[in-house]
Amino acid sequence: MSRGRFITFEGGEGTGKSTQVALLVDRLGARGRDVIRTREPGGSPGGEAIRSLVVSGSADRWSARTELLLMFAARSDHLERTIRPALEAGQWVVCDRFADSSRAYQGLAGGAETAFVEALDAHVVGTNQPDLTLIFDLPAEVGLERALARAQGDTRFESKGLAFHQNLRRAFQTIARAHPERCRLIDATGSIDDVQARVWAAVEPVLE
Amino acid sequence: MSRGRFITFEGGEGTGKSTQVALLVDRLGARGRDVIRTREPGGSPGGEAIRSLVVSGSADRWSARTELLLMFAARSDHLERTIRPALEAGQWVVCDRFADSSRAYQGLAGGAETAFVEALDAHVVGTNQPDLTLIFDLPAEVGLERALARAQGDTRFESKGLAFHQNLRRAFQTIARAHPERCRLIDATGSIDDVQARVWAAVEPVLE
Ligand SMILES: Nc1ncnc2c1ncn2[C@@H]1O[C@H](COP(=O)(O)OP(=O)(O)OP(=O)(O)O)[C@@H](O)[C@H]1O
Ligand SMILES: Nc1ncnc2c1ncn2[C@@H]1O[C@H](COP(=O)(O)OP(=O)(O)OP(=O)(O)O)[C@@H](O)[C@H]1O
Ligand SMILES: [Mg+2]
Ligand SMILES: [Mg+2]
Repeated sequence: MSRGRFITFEGGEGTGKSTQVALLVDRLGARGRDVIRTREPGGSPGGEAIRSLVVSGSADRWSARTELLLMFAARSDHLERTIRPALEAGQWVVCDRFADSSRAYQGLAGGAETAFVEALDAHVVGTNQPDLTLIFDLPAEVGLERALARAQGDTRFESKGLAFHQNLRRAFQTIARAHPERCRLIDATGSIDDVQARVWAAVEPVLE
Repeated sequence: MSRGRFITFEGGEGTGKSTQVALLVDRLGARGRDVIRTREPGGSPGGEAIRSLVVSGSADRWSARTELLLMFAARSDHLERTIRPALEAGQWVVCDRFADSSRAYQGLAGGAETAFVEALDAHVVGTNQPDLTLIFDLPAEVGLERALARAQGDTRFESKGLAFHQNLRRAFQTIARAHPERCRLIDATGSIDDVQARVWAAVEPVLE
């Protein structure tokens, strides 16, 4: 049995990641791929327990460094209990946020040391890098507007303000440039169908 | 105002650390020191929230690597919110377990990579190393017997079995040898008074 493919979706708040993850999973399933949908932080019982610490409370509940460690603790559990077993069983894994969110939120936009983020990635993710990462790019105001209109329960990150989210967009653009072998920047403006077409164009080469 | 002193207590289950932490804090207070007692994992609101994830559930709930990341997340919060502010205000800090417990439990006895433990220590603890670390040394059976007789609620670590705790004792002995500038191995056999005398003999040089 051949190993599955690992595809991650990244980008700021309300850029349309979760919407497109669902559509891609359906489309891959229709093409006969055995595919699981998962998310970070979370994706395993332990990862979800850690997630609940990270997404609730005031914006300054955790420093960037502490938050970074919690995110990689959740990621470690998620990789061990969900992602690696699925890939080894030949399943495709589509993950809503992954390590690039730590690089962007806690690292470049949050102020945690880049060398520390990369040391964590090397020890925790190691050779389990995504085969393909789609980075959703959208003006911060449009994304925040979409996210706030959705109005869900957990708003710890949304509460960080527009300047933070503008930094975040630049951070994700920087990450896409730094990892061209696996990252594709996706223009996330336009309709859901428009964006889906761009996602599919990026995924099709991996189908072979 | 001069910086306070940072003293940590380390060693396996039931070796008498918490008993002796309480006695030392009283004695330092009687000598006119402004002293706080704290513990790991925990010691700050965020640290205690992380602690509750780590100490409950089955023995294999977390891998050694995930547990290591959770311990350093809790330590990061504890250092930022409790330990560093106290030391900078001139207080003495007496802490029941600290980074050597990660070296021993998750590292040497648990199997997490030593290089990874040391990278975390360098980034999270950095220059905030303890001024003095007392490592309690006791045959594993005696410690486990004392701990089980005490019969408290959280038994996730006690449930790991005698062989694990024997490894742990050797691990702490190794750590004491590796950091002779700050570590003192304390013979934890004998009565509470016997041990207290040994603790005080180790602390007195730091009083000057
Ligand atoms: N192309 C689009 N045009 C307009 N609205 C969209 C588009 N894509 C998604 N939306 C809507 O915007 C909101 C945010 O989308 P979604 O939840 O998919 O974003 P997200 O990137 O997953 O956000 P978060 O980072 O907060 O999880 C939702 O209400 C969704 O229905
Ligand atoms: N010198 C001693 N002789 C006999 N019993 C002791 C001695 N010191 C402590 N005890 C008892 O042994 C039990 C364990 O002691 P204590 O809780 O201080 O250990 P600990 O090292 O903090 O354990 P843990 O690692 O589980 O927190 C307690 O019931 C305590 O009263
Ligand atoms: Mg989403
Ligand atoms: Mg104790």
